[in-house]
Amino acid sequence: MSPTRTNLPANRLLKLKRRPSGDALPSDFEVVEAPVDQPKAGEVLVRVLYSSVDAALRLIMHDSPDFLFRVAPGDLIRSQGIGEVIESQAAGFKPGDLVLGGLGVQDYSVVSAEGLERCDPSRAPLSSWLGGFGVSGLTAYFGLLDVCKPKPGETLVVTGAAGAVGSIVGQIGRIKGARAIGLCGSDEKCRWLKETLGYDVALNYKKADFYDQLVAATPDRVHMIFDNVGGPVFDQSIRRLSMHARAAICGATSQYNSEVMQGPSNYIAFATWRSKLEGFVVYDYADRFEAARRDMTQWIKEGRLKLIDHIVDGGPGDFPKLLQGLYQGTNRGKMILRYPGAPR
Amino acid sequence: MSPTRTNLPANRLLKLKRRPSGDALPSDFEVVEAPVDQPKAGEVLVRVLYSSVDAALRLIMHDSPDFLFRVAPGDLIRSQGIGEVIESQAAGFKPGDLVLGGLGVQDYSVVSAEGLERCDPSRAPLSSWLGGFGVSGLTAYFGLLDVCKPKPGETLVVTGAAGAVGSIVGQIGRIKGARAIGLCGSDEKCRWLKETLGYDVALNYKKADFYDQLVAATPDRVHMIFDNVGGPVFDQSIRRLSMHARAAICGATSQYNSEVMQGPSNYIAFATWRSKLEGFVVYDYADRFEAARRDMTQWIKEGRLKLIDHIVDGGPGDFPKLLQGLYQGTNRGKMILRYPGAPR
Repeated sequence: MSPTRTNLPANRLLKLKRRPSGDALPSDFEVVEAPVDQPKAGEVLVRVLYSSVDAALRLIMHDSPDFLFRVAPGDLIRSQGIGEVIESQAAGFKPGDLVLGGLGVQDYSVVSAEGLERCDPSRAPLSSWLGGFGVSGLTAYFGLLDVCKPKPGETLVVTGAAGAVGSIVGQIGRIKGARAIGLCGSDEKCRWLKETLGYDVALNYKKADFYDQLVAATPDRVHMIFDNVGGPVFDQSIRRLSMHARAAICGATSQYNSEVMQGPSNYIAFATWRSKLEGFVVYDYADRFEAARRDMTQWIKEGRLKLIDHIVDGGPGDFPKLLQGLYQGTNRGKMILRYPGAPR
Repeated sequence: MSPTRTNLPANRLLKLKRRPSGDALPSDFEVVEAPVDQPKAGEVLVRVLYSSVDAALRLIMHDSPDFLFRVAPGDLIRSQGIGEVIESQAAGFKPGDLVLGGLGVQDYSVVSAEGLERCDPSRAPLSSWLGGFGVSGLTAYFGLLDVCKPKPGETLVVTGAAGAVGSIVGQIGRIKGARAIGLCGSDEKCRWLKETLGYDVALNYKKADFYDQLVAATPDRVHMIFDNVGGPVFDQSIRRLSMHARAAICGATSQYNSEVMQGPSNYIAFATWRSKLEGFVVYDYADRFEAARRDMTQWIKEGRLKLIDHIVDGGPGDFPKLLQGLYQGTNRGKMILRYPGAPR
């Protein structure tokens, strides 16, 4: 048994109780209390301030050997978080340091210092280091610039455009001279995409005439698809591929609740249109994160980029509702759980 | 009405009678007789010697606006063919010239000279200009070399490995130093793939333990997939993707008979494994055909490449059976219909 801290309240950990069947419901999770562990050599003890709520969590809760990471019943829920170092047994870290890493959904986290990154709240709001200035924004940046490779005047379709990544993709697309078309699930979000994020066109995929609207909005067809959702919305976007189009596969939220996912039914169009579909993982670009953040800082300063955090106050037990909210489309930008006492 | 030839027998044209439902059956086609047309300026009259039987024909018989070419009921069946010029109204062509182009499934074809290519039977058997030395071989060459980009020691999986394209892909893969794994639908074809084409491994996807065999055969996972079939065989190949793998989408024969095609259900693995799926169309490489054929001629001379034609004698009315045969997997290499009087 690890030695534990006695000068701190019990840690509340969110664990998976059972594998969800279909939608992940709050009843599939449980909060467990346990004493806070003592950090060992190379580790730090962190008080968690924010937890990132990611749709992909649903995916890794499936019992499939095909994912590199998985969450099984009884496991702590994996999540990126931001926290403050309370005690350090690792060189280079001291109490008060603000760090980002795989902290899990819990009040206190004892983690190896190796996987931690530092957050500097003078560069971007602390919460945005999980969102637009963090993995979500970097995912948008590298997926768009390195996979889609926008050229001025090209048309970019972003699915899940109001989400954590999509809310950034459209803005960077426009900065690079592309025409940005955002797809989302409500008229109210469509207005927000255009008025707040500057999308050239925003379409509600739930409308009966959605595909006709998409055709009308893409007279030059579609040169790039940045896909966060998969399913029918992705299929319909694929029907509008231009020659030599590029589709970046970022996520497939419409499919994560299914035991058997559906691929793009018309993927053969990638042959007809000499196009490609490419996946990427943002961590592969770690050596360019700083350069990306310099670009983003400049764009923020110029008023061309907004980082959108959808922050909800609560504790580990509130996390499942927020995950459910992602699938109900309640968020605008990055869904983040803020723990008591964290900066606003 | 075009003027017609009276010194030739009636032309027999194969037409689509009705859109197939599911498998394309011989009863979905009909042979119609009509006088042979007279070529106009810029056109040539060709006696057809060989017709290419292509699985993709089934695809373009669907009533979908998403394909660049379609065949509707009442239309002549589109097909590449090889023929001999009988009369020319086009500069540069004279009677006796051997040409390749979109001749359609019929005895005589009047076509614009613009889309015609010349065949030189001293370089490869005439029939092979439709197969391994023609579109099928060039498709294998460019799809493998330009999309998959093999590196020595990498593992290549070829689906539909005994088919027109697959029979060439594995051989070129091995020439480039890759380890070639061929997937096909019978043990007898597996033997043929290994003994005749030199595949390192050949697996029968109909075996109950096929996926286990594939896992055992791919200890380094799979760096390249050259996919001709789509469906479950492609899905299972995708489960073995390595990091930064490349999948060339050449065809999806397992899906062409369905009104609604199924995409690769686990395509999200392309994200997990930082991989890409890319389509291509061989005609985009037309300016490199001659260079490719020089490579292939050299490989044939060195005994490293075999062009495999599966030739069946008959007339336009026999074409539907051969198309059906493709879907039943009766062919080894390129399925070609040979008209009476064509060289063997």
